[in-house]
Amino acid sequence: MNDILNRLDQELNARKGMSPDSSYVASLYAKGLDKILKKVGEEAVETIMAAKDGDNEHLVYEITDLWFHTLILLAHKNLTSEDILNELERRFGVSGHTEKAQRPLTD
Amino acid sequence: MNDILNRLDQELNARKGMSPDSSYVASLYAKGLDKILKKVGEEAVETIMAAKDGDNEHLVYEITDLWFHTLILLAHKNLTSEDILNELERRFGVSGHTEKAQRPLTD
Amino acid sequence: MNDILNRLDQELNARKGMSPDSSYVASLYAKGLDKILKKVGEEAVETIMAAKDGDNEHLVYEITDLWFHTLILLAHKNLTSEDILNELERRFGVSGHTEKAQRPLTD
Amino acid sequence: MNDILNRLDQELNARKGMSPDSSYVASLYAKGLDKILKKVGEEAVETIMAAKDGDNEHLVYEITDLWFHTLILLAHKNLTSEDILNELERRFGVSGHTEKAQRPLTD
Repeated sequence: MNDILNRLDQELNARKGMSPDSSYVASLYAKGLDKILKKVGEEAVETIMAAKDGDNEHLVYEITDLWFHTLILLAHKNLTSEDILNELERRFGVSGHTEKAQRPLTD
Repeated sequence: MNDILNRLDQELNARKGMSPDSSYVASLYAKGLDKILKKVGEEAVETIMAAKDGDNEHLVYEITDLWFHTLILLAHKNLTSEDILNELERRFGVSGHTEKAQRPLTD
Repeated sequence: MNDILNRLDQELNARKGMSPDSSYVASLYAKGLDKILKKVGEEAVETIMAAKDGDNEHLVYEITDLWFHTLILLAHKNLTSEDILNELERRFGVSGHTEKAQRPLTD
Repeated sequence: MNDILNRLDQELNARKGMSPDSSYVASLYAKGLDKILKKVGEEAVETIMAAKDGDNEHLVYEITDLWFHTLILLAHKNLTSEDILNELERRFGVSGHTEKAQRPLTD
């Protein structure tokens, strides 16, 4: 159902071998890590500004951009969204009320 | 299967009515939007530094922190991870080679 | 001697009435606050990355960019570098050993 | 007159040999580069948020924090505010109308 993250992982991985001219993502890979990180920083700033503006539609757009560029960063580092979801599961994947009461949601 | 995002949405929503003392997340809600946004900014910076260090395990940890704090931001704004996944699906959820060729992976 | 900050304040103020086509600064003013803030965010990220790279020449370049864009932000808000220097003076402008001992350099 | 930057450079340099317990700055040096960079990132985010809030007094406070932490970063790297002012002078230190007309204020 919401396997869009898996499909994006695969698609982003497939772009690695392609010409920089072929897509935005391929051009980012070609420019290298620093360019990808600048985009992550930019999208974080735009997320913060959209939240301050109180415009939820714009906020969803910017958080999507932020997640998307972290997916590109993960692919560039030979990682995937699964690594993030597994880490979230490890931290917060509780299964019962008792455990939830014992382990408050912290980072 | 990887419904951890859905479960986190529900859990983060449930924390809204709780005492600031009860958990890290409840304390963030109580401190308000600016505090949540500062955390988003901090985790973006830590993501960038971990990537520069070339430490993938640390990078996964920091991107997880970044996603987690965007989930808190979404919950604070009465949004959920579904809004982000739907927007990714809208942008990139292509189904055939023809469409992919027409619409390159860009932002 | 090092009145470059004062001269930049004046110059940046003078650019306000000019056509967006006339200079980079005039084009930033025309694009508005959000665009200026995005640049501040970008230059902060580039400062962090240059520092991680351990390249001091590049670091000086990026911190200069960061200060320069905060000067543009100040001018856009009808403020100047004097406001920043006065606030630094207010916080840290101690004049004797006794006072220094009493008031440690904190923020 | 406004030699506060020079005096801060000297003061920040003097703090390098001191115990981490002696002051905020000494404790930052002891924690190392990454901690200093996190503070630079935080202050940039707080600058952006103060500007969005339209609160000029708060904005001056946050830009001062940002400049102050870049001064700490410079000291940590054995650089000073003079390096930044010299780079600003090199870029923008024009002396006549003719030169200004020839070299628009760009980065």
